[in-house]
Amino acid sequence: MERRENGPEMKQSGRVVDGPTNPMVTPLLNDLYQFTMAYAYWKAGKHDERSVFDLYFRKNPFGGEYTVFAGLEECIKFLANFKLTEEEIVFVRDSLPGCEEAFCDYLRGIDCSDVEVYAISEGSAVFPKVPLMRVEGPVGVVQLLETPFLNLVNYASLVATNAARHRFVAGKSKILLEFGARRAQGPDGAISASKYCYMGGFDATSNVAAGRLFGIPIRGTHSHAFVSSFMSLDEIVDKALHSSDGKSTCEDFVALVQTWLTKIQYSPSLRGIFSETNQSELAAFTSYALAFPKAFLALVDTYDVMKSGIPNFCAVALALNDLGYKALGIRLDSGDLAYLSTEVRNFFHIIEREFKVPDFGKMGITASNDLNEETIDALNKQGHEVDAFGIGTYLVTCYSQAALGCVFKLVEINNQPRIKLSEDVTKVSIPCKKRCYRLYGKEGYPLVDIMTGENEPPPKVGERLLCRHPFNESKRAYVVPQRVEELLKCYWRGNADKAREELPPLEKIRERCITQLENMRPDHMRRLNPTPYKVSVSAKLYDFIHFLWLNEAPVGELQ
Amino acid sequence: MERRENGPEMKQSGRVVDGPTNPMVTPLLNDLYQFTMAYAYWKAGKHDERSVFDLYFRKNPFGGEYTVFAGLEECIKFLANFKLTEEEIVFVRDSLPGCEEAFCDYLRGIDCSDVEVYAISEGSAVFPKVPLMRVEGPVGVVQLLETPFLNLVNYASLVATNAARHRFVAGKSKILLEFGARRAQGPDGAISASKYCYMGGFDATSNVAAGRLFGIPIRGTHSHAFVSSFMSLDEIVDKALHSSDGKSTCEDFVALVQTWLTKIQYSPSLRGIFSETNQSELAAFTSYALAFPKAFLALVDTYDVMKSGIPNFCAVALALNDLGYKALGIRLDSGDLAYLSTEVRNFFHIIEREFKVPDFGKMGITASNDLNEETIDALNKQGHEVDAFGIGTYLVTCYSQAALGCVFKLVEINNQPRIKLSEDVTKVSIPCKKRCYRLYGKEGYPLVDIMTGENEPPPKVGERLLCRHPFNESKRAYVVPQRVEELLKCYWRGNADKAREELPPLEKIRERCITQLENMRPDHMRRLNPTPYKVSVSAKLYDFIHFLWLNEAPVGELQ
Repeated sequence: MERRENGPEMKQSGRVVDGPTNPMVTPLLNDLYQFTMAYAYWKAGKHDERSVFDLYFRKNPFGGEYTVFAGLEECIKFLANFKLTEEEIVFVRDSLPGCEEAFCDYLRGIDCSDVEVYAISEGSAVFPKVPLMRVEGPVGVVQLLETPFLNLVNYASLVATNAARHRFVAGKSKILLEFGARRAQGPDGAISASKYCYMGGFDATSNVAAGRLFGIPIRGTHSHAFVSSFMSLDEIVDKALHSSDGKSTCEDFVALVQTWLTKIQYSPSLRGIFSETNQSELAAFTSYALAFPKAFLALVDTYDVMKSGIPNFCAVALALNDLGYKALGIRLDSGDLAYLSTEVRNFFHIIEREFKVPDFGKMGITASNDLNEETIDALNKQGHEVDAFGIGTYLVTCYSQAALGCVFKLVEINNQPRIKLSEDVTKVSIPCKKRCYRLYGKEGYPLVDIMTGENEPPPKVGERLLCRHPFNESKRAYVVPQRVEELLKCYWRGNADKAREELPPLEKIRERCITQLENMRPDHMRRLNPTPYKVSVSAKLYDFIHFLWLNEAPVGELQ
Repeated sequence: MERRENGPEMKQSGRVVDGPTNPMVTPLLNDLYQFTMAYAYWKAGKHDERSVFDLYFRKNPFGGEYTVFAGLEECIKFLANFKLTEEEIVFVRDSLPGCEEAFCDYLRGIDCSDVEVYAISEGSAVFPKVPLMRVEGPVGVVQLLETPFLNLVNYASLVATNAARHRFVAGKSKILLEFGARRAQGPDGAISASKYCYMGGFDATSNVAAGRLFGIPIRGTHSHAFVSSFMSLDEIVDKALHSSDGKSTCEDFVALVQTWLTKIQYSPSLRGIFSETNQSELAAFTSYALAFPKAFLALVDTYDVMKSGIPNFCAVALALNDLGYKALGIRLDSGDLAYLSTEVRNFFHIIEREFKVPDFGKMGITASNDLNEETIDALNKQGHEVDAFGIGTYLVTCYSQAALGCVFKLVEINNQPRIKLSEDVTKVSIPCKKRCYRLYGKEGYPLVDIMTGENEPPPKVGERLLCRHPFNESKRAYVVPQRVEELLKCYWRGNADKAREELPPLEKIRERCITQLENMRPDHMRRLNPTPYKVSVSAKLYDFIHFLWLNEAPVGELQ
């Protein structure tokens, strides 16, 4: 792939904005029709007409009634560095039948210095039809932002929402780990999944690259292959282990482990639960503990959890305990997690009592076998002893709904409002350059989002306001807001040397997301039959939408 | 992102292999546990033990009985350039609790010069349990290939299979266009979707970057926004259009279009079908035709297909026809595609007859509204007149099953066969370094895949052979193969200067895929209740699997 010198590195108020995380995000990450349209606009002399596009979705994903907005930072990074290379220009020219050479000069000249982006803050709870982003600028350029922006926002928002939903069902006290790299839809699916799952409320990822790029905590221990790569304890040559305080050395840690295994086997309360454990597993655990005495966490289901994995783990953990180390816990990757985690917890409690090892019963239990919202919900209902969930496939591929349907619609050009009609009323676009507000009620919950025309006076605290459903004429409500929040803030102002919002660090966006979702009225958040959050338009905008609709729709002829 | 100097650019037989398409595919695109294990192997002095891992899946996706293997080329490109940078090494060291400094020297030294990869050719039809790749080498290094290989193969194979299934249901005669960039799971989801959909039998993509990177044909015209960006015909300033032979010029193409619209409106057969068409749409179509007279294809559903879009399109197409240009056709993006495409086709036929324009009735009809296997199947059953399908969301996100479950299992270390047990018999791994063959019957169809131990004699043409189900003892069959194909070929031989398979160009892989699927027995391919293709092991391997299983599984103790 050609190296991109990150375009013009446009500065705003002296700041340089880095390019997108993925260097493959270039102006050519685009549908061809954006370029054919750019050419047709240019041929018609329309390319510089001032246009306003709204980016929004029509339906919340996963049968829920909320969505987390994510991907904004990558969009801003993309447009801040938007510039076609000479090779890209030649490729575009050769792809357009009959393209005039002068169009290349146009492409050479374009960047986002005349584009403005207003957006809801990343990490916010957002709702259908309300613009997440309003993009203004020359129609030829803004059209070229459609596909990349949709690509960068759709999956980001979808997976952040999925993560938030998993957090909701798991509860605040559980540790949530994203383990999706191997099953994600491509390398970028993996890396951006890690980023946006963290944003949506996860605690850590297994993905090392994501940890390095975004500073996300990373987690991981060992796999089944590690366990089965050992044959027997004889393989362990270097058997010495210093105690945790460094004051003494156990010369034969292997023997210590074996002693403990025998003690467990013949302890009064555990007698008869298991006989011979798998020796390659015992060798693997012992070896792993020698490598990570301070961070011993073992995968216990390679052969048999209760007959082999758990006794072997306890023998190693107790040997470590003798030397002053505290094992972290175990991971279960198969079987009935409710049953097994409870059995394992009992076993740990027996060890604690039997051998008087304080807190051994609180040993961490991680579960990680094809988990999703439903299985965690089912585990909660059955009762379980899992402390941490490692979630992969269903989380990162958004298995229960693999796409969010954000669209990018023209709402105004040359100060003329535009509408896109459809036989399906949910697909009719809301015309005009708009302002959007979130109105809060007495209890502090958001009550309704409202869109108004650009020049309407903003809603005022304590003043009664009529909120109308944009398409259903009988759905109306008066609202007296206790707080009014303007949703769309300026995140990009082209070359204008005016203030704009900073791009906050990931940690801040994550906090916003968690706080916003905690402050939603609980009935919007529940998994089963949640109440839709209301999205409305002002009375004036309502009237205008319907005037324009009738104006544009052809009238039928009955004969 | 740090720039990678593409590692050692290992040469094999003098050839340099480029790095992966996505520069984000680095050794850190990995689960942390691969590094913790590498450390533990290294601490135990096991890191250089010769290991053999199989990469395979357990179940075909989409309820089908076949899978297309894809992603091999990217894996080879990855390992050919596998090398950690100094910054990556420091990051890994700091991520491992208590990591010894000497481990960094180990990480500095590793590459894939001692790794061998045997694989089924990319684009082949493949089946559960048969290794798609067999990776051999030092366990510390091969372990670090697991996550990247799975990431590169899982989605690639899934989406190629999805594309092949869409091709199967659409039929060979239809044009299939991949339109998924905006809904794909991230930028790479988009670009690799385009690549692997083409491999699976699509004809073109809308994705410009994919077209440029892989030479895939690209397609695209205009969107609804283009249509609604126009207000009226007055906007068109430059109205002149040369005829296609360059010999004459129509000074007012707009007037010519208007004349044709009136003629259509008052033609005897079409009278009363529509009255006033939308003028902004007419202006947009006219303008687009002036930009692309040789490639006029219009999106006709912005306002109303039959009352506005089609009459407007025909007026422009007939005006172009006067100047010797042939319009390409229309695109439908909403509504009842079976009904509308048939109505549109009738309209075109009437135009052909009424105005004596040969072939106008054969005008191309493209459909593109949330299509998938089921909707295309339903359209086929209802009858339709669509020539080309543009498929996005459901195709590239693999909506009906968003992940393929390829796994990477240790099957041998230090020449000792290894097995991974599980309470779920479908999750038990097949041990040993194996050879795999596809056996063909008299009619030329593949009959069965068989795995044998490495040193067993290969199946011979005309010689009867017992094929056993690997886990179900009563499922057995004698086979007399008419042709024997060895499936695993060497695609990477480390530094050894021996011959290996070339990485074929995408076009060749695509041909292989199409040919292989056409040559499968039809009952394996049908959408409803397809017959499973048989996957077997030799009698000798069967016995060995079950010997090892009993040997490793702990025996319960009943009291």
